[in-house]
Amino acid sequence: MALHTIDSLVSQVAKALERAGASPKMALSTARALVAAEAQGMSSHGLARAGQYAAHLRSGRVKGDAVPIIRAQRGAGVLIDGDDGLAFPACELAMHEAISRARQYAVGFAGVTRSHHFGVAAMHLQAAAQAGMVGFAFSNSPAAMPAPGGTRALFGTNPVAAAFPRRDGDAVSIDLSLSEVARGKLMVAAREGRSIPLGWALDKDGNPTTDPKAGMDGMMCPVGGVKGAMLALMVELLCVSLTGAAFSYEADSFFSPEGNRPNLGHVFLVIDPSALAGTDVYFERVEALIEAMLADEQVRIPGARRLQLAACSAAGGIEVSDAVIQELYA
Amino acid sequence: MALHTIDSLVSQVAKALERAGASPKMALSTARALVAAEAQGMSSHGLARAGQYAAHLRSGRVKGDAVPIIRAQRGAGVLIDGDDGLAFPACELAMHEAISRARQYAVGFAGVTRSHHFGVAAMHLQAAAQAGMVGFAFSNSPAAMPAPGGTRALFGTNPVAAAFPRRDGDAVSIDLSLSEVARGKLMVAAREGRSIPLGWALDKDGNPTTDPKAGMDGMMCPVGGVKGAMLALMVELLCVSLTGAAFSYEADSFFSPEGNRPNLGHVFLVIDPSALAGTDVYFERVEALIEAMLADEQVRIPGARRLQLAACSAAGGIEVSDAVIQELYA
Repeated sequence: MALHTIDSLVSQVAKALERAGASPKMALSTARALVAAEAQGMSSHGLARAGQYAAHLRSGRVKGDAVPIIRAQRGAGVLIDGDDGLAFPACELAMHEAISRARQYAVGFAGVTRSHHFGVAAMHLQAAAQAGMVGFAFSNSPAAMPAPGGTRALFGTNPVAAAFPRRDGDAVSIDLSLSEVARGKLMVAAREGRSIPLGWALDKDGNPTTDPKAGMDGMMCPVGGVKGAMLALMVELLCVSLTGAAFSYEADSFFSPEGNRPNLGHVFLVIDPSALAGTDVYFERVEALIEAMLADEQVRIPGARRLQLAACSAAGGIEVSDAVIQELYA
Repeated sequence: MALHTIDSLVSQVAKALERAGASPKMALSTARALVAAEAQGMSSHGLARAGQYAAHLRSGRVKGDAVPIIRAQRGAGVLIDGDDGLAFPACELAMHEAISRARQYAVGFAGVTRSHHFGVAAMHLQAAAQAGMVGFAFSNSPAAMPAPGGTRALFGTNPVAAAFPRRDGDAVSIDLSLSEVARGKLMVAAREGRSIPLGWALDKDGNPTTDPKAGMDGMMCPVGGVKGAMLALMVELLCVSLTGAAFSYEADSFFSPEGNRPNLGHVFLVIDPSALAGTDVYFERVEALIEAMLADEQVRIPGARRLQLAACSAAGGIEVSDAVIQELYA
C-alpha cells in the first residue's frame, strides 16, 4: 500500500486507458470518475475497473475514438448517443444537457444509448446538486436477476440514484442497486469458503442456494423479492425503451474481456426546485426532514460518509495497493 | 353479495360523497376512481374507502368545496395545489398538464401539494398510456416506516407506479408500495389469531415482532430493509421538497376520522417516446422484453390480471357485499 495524490492517480489511470486505445478526452473523463469513486471508498467502482475498461478497449467491446452526440431532442428531453465508447463522456454531455434544459423548462430528461458501465450512479448527479437542482440517475446493466417466476437472468441489478442539494453542506445522496446484495459479497464468501444466506442468490437453474460459487454461476436475488424485480423491470424499460439501447439480457458480462458492445442505456432526470414550490420552500422542507431523521441518534444521512471520505482523500491522498498500480502498467 | 353495474356503483358512491359535503365534481371524480379500483380487484382501495373519505369530509380533514389550481409553472413543469380536497380532481388536472407538456417538451412533470389519499397509483397513469406515453407516479402517505437505525415512523409506505403503453393491448403497469407487505396482511393475521413472520413489522419501540397487533400499533418494515428505506426516503423528498407538501410524519393517519388536513404530495412524470428514440423503436423494445419474459411459462406481465378483471367487471358488473353498500347510506 502507498499513498497517492488524486492528481497523480488520475494521470496514471488516464495514461493506462490511452495506451489501451482511448482518446485523451475519454481517458481523462473516465480516469477522473474512477479516481473519484476510489476517493469515496467505492473501490468496487474505482481503480480496479481500469483494467476491465482497458481490456474492453483492446478487444473492441468499447470504441476508443467514440464521440458522444445529441441524437434527438425536443424541449426538455434529449437523447445522447454514446457511440459505443466508455460511458463517462456521454454521461457528462447528458448531465450538461439535462441541467441546462431544467433551467429553461423546469425539468431536463436525458437518455443515453450505446453506452457502457456508468460507474457510481450518484456521482453523475453531483453536477446537478452543484447547480442547486434535484437529480435522478438510472441504468440497466448486464443481466443478473430473473423475472418473478422466471428461471433465466433477464434484468440487470439496475442502479438507481438520487441527489437532493442542501442549502449548506453536501447533498443528500442515495445510491443503490436492485439486487438483495452486491455480487462482491458472493466473491468474498467464496474466497473465504463460507456459505451465504438463502435469499442472496439462485443457482443457474433458478433454485435458491447457499453456495456462493453456485450463485456466481447463477443469478442474484432482487431486493425484497417480487417488489425488487418489479423495480428492476421499471428501470429496464425506462432506460431501454425510450433510448433504443439493449436490454440487460442482450449485453454480455462486463467481467469478460471478450463479448459484444454492451449498448446499455441510462436515464438522467434533473428538476429545478425554483420552478415549482420555490427554492426557499425546497430548502426548508429538506432541512425539516433531515432534522427529523437526525433526532434518532443511530440514523445517518445517506451520502454523508462517502463525501467525508472524498474530502479526506482530497486532503491526504488515497491509499492504493501496489498490485492495483502495477495492473495499470500491465 | 349482489351484482352491481359500474354506472350504478359510481352514482351511489358519488351521492354518498355529496351527502358528506363533496362538490358534485369532486364526488364524481372520486367515485369513478374508487369503483375503477374495485373493478380491478383492488378492494383495499375501492368502495371500502368511500366511508373513510366521507368521514374526512364531515370532520373537516378534507375540504368538500376545494378547487385544484395551477400554483406555479415553467415549461415542462407544473405545480398543482389540491386545495385540501380529495386527491382525484387534483390528480386529473396534474395528469392532464403533464401529458400536454410532454407532447410539447418531451417530458411533463406535475407535482401536487395539499392533497390526500390518491388511491391506486397506477390508475392515474392510464391517461398517459392512452396518449401513447410512458408515465410514472409517486406519493407520500402517513408515516408507517422508520429510517434505517431509527425508532420512529418517519416515511410513508410511499407508492411507486409506472406504465409503459404497448402497440396493441394493455400497458405494462407496475404498482407497488415500499413496505415489505401491505398493512392489510397484518389485519388479516390479527383477525385470524395467527402470528406474522419476522421482517414484516416492528413494535412501537422499533423491535422486530411476530405479533400482528403489536405491528399494527407499531411500524411496517421497508421492503428489503435498508434499500427499501432509501427508496422511501427518495420518494418522500421527491413528493415533498419540490411541492411544499407535508412529510409523512406530519400527516395524521387516514384510519382516523379526526386529525389534520394531511397535505400530502404526489409527483407525476410523463415522457413522450416520439421525442427520444422514436415510437417505432419504443414499441419494438417493449415487445422484445415482453417476449423474453413470456418465454418463461411462469412469468406474468404486471398489470395484465388487473386489467382482465376490469374488463370482466365492465361486462358483467361487480360483486359487492351488502355491508359495503349499506355503509354508503350510513
